[in-house]
Amino acid sequence: MNSFGKLFCIQIFGESHGASVGLIIDGCPAGLPLSEADFIVDTERRKGGVQKGTTPRKEDDLPIFKSGLFNGKTTGAPLTILFENNNTRSQDYEKHRSIPRPGHADFTAHKKYGGFEDFRGGGHFSGRLTVCLVAAGVVAKKLLAAHQIHIQATINEIGGEADLDKGLQKAIDAKDSIGGIVACSALGLPIGLGEHFFDSVESLISHAVFAIPAVKGIEFGAGFAAAKMFGSEHNDSIENSAGLTKTNHAGGIVGGITNGNELYFRVAIKPTSSTPKEQVSLNWDNNQQEHFSIKGRHDLCIALRVPVILEAVTAMVITDLMLQEQQLKRII
Amino acid sequence: MNSFGKLFCIQIFGESHGASVGLIIDGCPAGLPLSEADFIVDTERRKGGVQKGTTPRKEDDLPIFKSGLFNGKTTGAPLTILFENNNTRSQDYEKHRSIPRPGHADFTAHKKYGGFEDFRGGGHFSGRLTVCLVAAGVVAKKLLAAHQIHIQATINEIGGEADLDKGLQKAIDAKDSIGGIVACSALGLPIGLGEHFFDSVESLISHAVFAIPAVKGIEFGAGFAAAKMFGSEHNDSIENSAGLTKTNHAGGIVGGITNGNELYFRVAIKPTSSTPKEQVSLNWDNNQQEHFSIKGRHDLCIALRVPVILEAVTAMVITDLMLQEQQLKRII
Amino acid sequence: MNSFGKLFCIQIFGESHGASVGLIIDGCPAGLPLSEADFIVDTERRKGGVQKGTTPRKEDDLPIFKSGLFNGKTTGAPLTILFENNNTRSQDYEKHRSIPRPGHADFTAHKKYGGFEDFRGGGHFSGRLTVCLVAAGVVAKKLLAAHQIHIQATINEIGGEADLDKGLQKAIDAKDSIGGIVACSALGLPIGLGEHFFDSVESLISHAVFAIPAVKGIEFGAGFAAAKMFGSEHNDSIENSAGLTKTNHAGGIVGGITNGNELYFRVAIKPTSSTPKEQVSLNWDNNQQEHFSIKGRHDLCIALRVPVILEAVTAMVITDLMLQEQQLKRII
Amino acid sequence: MNSFGKLFCIQIFGESHGASVGLIIDGCPAGLPLSEADFIVDTERRKGGVQKGTTPRKEDDLPIFKSGLFNGKTTGAPLTILFENNNTRSQDYEKHRSIPRPGHADFTAHKKYGGFEDFRGGGHFSGRLTVCLVAAGVVAKKLLAAHQIHIQATINEIGGEADLDKGLQKAIDAKDSIGGIVACSALGLPIGLGEHFFDSVESLISHAVFAIPAVKGIEFGAGFAAAKMFGSEHNDSIENSAGLTKTNHAGGIVGGITNGNELYFRVAIKPTSSTPKEQVSLNWDNNQQEHFSIKGRHDLCIALRVPVILEAVTAMVITDLMLQEQQLKRII
Repeated sequence: MNSFGKLFCIQIFGESHGASVGLIIDGCPAGLPLSEADFIVDTERRKGGVQKGTTPRKEDDLPIFKSGLFNGKTTGAPLTILFENNNTRSQDYEKHRSIPRPGHADFTAHKKYGGFEDFRGGGHFSGRLTVCLVAAGVVAKKLLAAHQIHIQATINEIGGEADLDKGLQKAIDAKDSIGGIVACSALGLPIGLGEHFFDSVESLISHAVFAIPAVKGIEFGAGFAAAKMFGSEHNDSIENSAGLTKTNHAGGIVGGITNGNELYFRVAIKPTSSTPKEQVSLNWDNNQQEHFSIKGRHDLCIALRVPVILEAVTAMVITDLMLQEQQLKRII
Repeated sequence: MNSFGKLFCIQIFGESHGASVGLIIDGCPAGLPLSEADFIVDTERRKGGVQKGTTPRKEDDLPIFKSGLFNGKTTGAPLTILFENNNTRSQDYEKHRSIPRPGHADFTAHKKYGGFEDFRGGGHFSGRLTVCLVAAGVVAKKLLAAHQIHIQATINEIGGEADLDKGLQKAIDAKDSIGGIVACSALGLPIGLGEHFFDSVESLISHAVFAIPAVKGIEFGAGFAAAKMFGSEHNDSIENSAGLTKTNHAGGIVGGITNGNELYFRVAIKPTSSTPKEQVSLNWDNNQQEHFSIKGRHDLCIALRVPVILEAVTAMVITDLMLQEQQLKRII
Repeated sequence: MNSFGKLFCIQIFGESHGASVGLIIDGCPAGLPLSEADFIVDTERRKGGVQKGTTPRKEDDLPIFKSGLFNGKTTGAPLTILFENNNTRSQDYEKHRSIPRPGHADFTAHKKYGGFEDFRGGGHFSGRLTVCLVAAGVVAKKLLAAHQIHIQATINEIGGEADLDKGLQKAIDAKDSIGGIVACSALGLPIGLGEHFFDSVESLISHAVFAIPAVKGIEFGAGFAAAKMFGSEHNDSIENSAGLTKTNHAGGIVGGITNGNELYFRVAIKPTSSTPKEQVSLNWDNNQQEHFSIKGRHDLCIALRVPVILEAVTAMVITDLMLQEQQLKRII
Repeated sequence: MNSFGKLFCIQIFGESHGASVGLIIDGCPAGLPLSEADFIVDTERRKGGVQKGTTPRKEDDLPIFKSGLFNGKTTGAPLTILFENNNTRSQDYEKHRSIPRPGHADFTAHKKYGGFEDFRGGGHFSGRLTVCLVAAGVVAKKLLAAHQIHIQATINEIGGEADLDKGLQKAIDAKDSIGGIVACSALGLPIGLGEHFFDSVESLISHAVFAIPAVKGIEFGAGFAAAKMFGSEHNDSIENSAGLTKTNHAGGIVGGITNGNELYFRVAIKPTSSTPKEQVSLNWDNNQQEHFSIKGRHDLCIALRVPVILEAVTAMVITDLMLQEQQLKRII
């Protein structure tokens, strides 16, 4: 389904070329001041059109509060936020309908929903929906900031290059899209969030992270590098009674539970599925493979938009765990 | 918490050195034949003592059916399975209590549960609990096999070596523990399992996979390699109306939904935390760092035990999704 | 929280005097034709202004589809429906703020949300939100009708009178509000919905029914009368292999599970809390009890509005169980 | 399914004539002292054999702790408690198999589980399972008692008689079983538990209460009597800033939320389905109706056993809400 969280529960909805997209936060503590201004930095970070490699599509992306806010503060009732879709050009997409775009959900959504899905611009399966995640993140990060918890994601690599311009230029030169790696860290977490098994912090974060379209991998701390290490190298020696460790190969999580060190993980982002390059795929109408190319506005490197979204889903998970562990009050 | 699943729900319980460990499957379809014999292969695969690099601890690991089975078949009521702990040597562990073992949950569990946790052999935080996952997997895999779905996990690398003996020998030579990589694949999945956002197949599998102690990373299809690829390379061209793709960089999941191709993912396993090597960590009693080494029976390479557990949690997720999508009947 | 359901999940939101109220249905099968016209009969049934005893407040109550509908049919993605609040007169309510109205949530909401709640007209705690339940019911009943399941609720008593006009007249004569009893029945249910213990049909229906403000009791089949009966009287003799029983004291549910007979239950509705009569209650400002009376538009008998809401929540529960039992397809 | 609760989650399992019945509490706070002795009073209250009208079947009903307890205190990990079935006489039941007993789940379970259900003595559908609820209640009530919350249920009526002996004698004289009414109250609840809509206190309590076999109705406060009242009669006037009301027609819940007054509700218990009287029902073997009578040990009035079970499920709900509202600590 399209909801996540136990006490801080996010429900998202909407379609790329429908009337709007939006979200409900059910369980948001009462008394949090919230205004349009709180959302601008993050919705801008998510937007295309600024950085080399992102799409020129622009939405105003102004949050419209439909419920749960009164006199500028959250009420404790469900907080509903809409984003109108002002800037849609559906005609770009109609013509691709007979060829399910590789890498997109066209084929799987069609099979799953029997052809009833809204296919315009990916419909519900569009990256447009990530503005809803970002909005949830704005609220969650504001709640966490009041508890000295700060979450920050940054791009690590584009196309295998730590020099990001170089990575993007590779894509531009190749007239192709390209993937990347994004890292996320959280500072200030209390010891004891998460459970050992099914609700380990890694379980919950990865659950939320794979809701971000284009994420294909996640690793905590040393991650895949740990698979090559000896135990004596990997183990993080505890230095004091606050749990500070000398190294942080664990990424701040031991036994599924936060250990008071920096939470750190990295995600792999596949290249944007809508590449400018010509491709071959099946034409449903005649059941034959066909050469085609995708028109319309698209990012060369979707990874550039991911940091703010990654922060958002991480903040959602942490906020929920903070409420469960009674580290975050229900009334601010 | 310690449960997972919506319609096929697994609850695990128990401690390493308590009376027993076990599980309940609530929502198991009625009419599935089940006997002790069904469990032997998989509980043996999980056990130490056979392969180089695994611990000599042996449990009989015979499942005791406490409820939900009648005349040799599941009844549809909760299926409860116990495994007795016969072979515990708690005294091995008592003496380490003043030093929380690096890499283990000793420190985080102590903080989270205020010192009330059962610390013997890791207590509830022990790898011993994975026999419960394996048992759930036996049931799930048997249900899936009746629908021509087969799940298979294998070790890819030990200590960075595809030649596994070589990898293990490195650890033996170094008198240290070592990590590894395990791959898992599922064949025969219908198109349409999973949701686009929070219940994407990647979300649910990674949620379950990170319940396995020592997993620190997961990647689907091309995974982290995708971050270095161009879109035209990564996109899997659709070849026919059944959705067969030429390549499988997506790992069988597009838009969060199965696309009918092989489900494929890999996980990174950290080295066993209990290395034979001397380590330095904090002594809680005097608040000073101290050299110490861990006695007792331990695996050199915990990754060797992981394949059967990985199959198990994958089967749990798939079974739940099959029930949700009405592809698996509630009565066999 | 404000959501309900496992596979057919309803989330409601909004405030009486805010911008709007609304709902999301997550998990609605794809392919259901839906238009404004489908909602008119039920939103009219819920509205005041027609029957003696209901409030003259009128909202157009036209559903605005914000997501999940494409070419007039549900897509399988979250279905979002808004109702704008056009006809609010907040000034009626502002002045009562210093006296929490007895029977209303003014006092409890204030304590729970620390004064941050939207108190205008009851805010989120208003009966206005029941239009969201009605809308969910329209969708659920349409899904069920395609499976020959029909749900019908009717008023049994007003103020203890089976002659409803007589009951209402008592209230009008007394210049007071009055309670009532509403019965609900469902025909065409398959045998086997529900679970024996926590998800018994009685458990799930009563859970949903007590989300309707003013409901204070529920009884299935013979209900409270069963407490006075002998077993030989109460037991429903099974007459044929389809499970038809001679009597229906069980109300169609045995062992928590539907038995194929008519589902039947009754609910007790308290009198409208906003009575025209003068009352005594605490004034928060001076901490003294005070005489006061409630102005504004109110129903004399809220029970008159309940039947359509009762049908709605019943339909939500049945639809969810039908999906779980694979008796209702995910694609229509 | 067979589980209930969000943060204090109860899973029950077992069959009447299987090896055992039992429960898991997942989310029980750490540090609660618990021993066999804590359970004796309540398991005795539930047992037959003492009062006139209850069955002579006796189980020792000693709780066996299988996990989650260490050095006599809860650890925070799942708490598993078994009750062995020592005193079963399955042969009493085998012969009734061809006639589904009216009022029992024989028919519905058979249809739902396709004949795979364990039918001996009602199997999973037996009142025997209520010992699991009682055990969960022992733990929950002990947690609540530490917060000055006390829950007490008592029998109000047997067969319509407030003089209980008189009610039972009617049944004995009639050689029939008989129903009753049980009331439950909780003192000491904080203001603010529960949500307005789907998680109202009435919703959650009724959900749990209808998991008790034989309950067919529930009413809060004035309940069904409210349906005959005027608003000015029913409204509870608030007397002071702690929320104390002059009357308690609301039963301590307004707007779905506890208001600090006594929580009060009553439930209707149907007569024991296994009456000594001869009955007529369908014989599955020949598809004809047949006279038959039920042998074996049975209660004349199952309501006599209900008070302790009612306290238990109420305590479960309250404990869960106390954790959600951060009124009950995760470490004692």
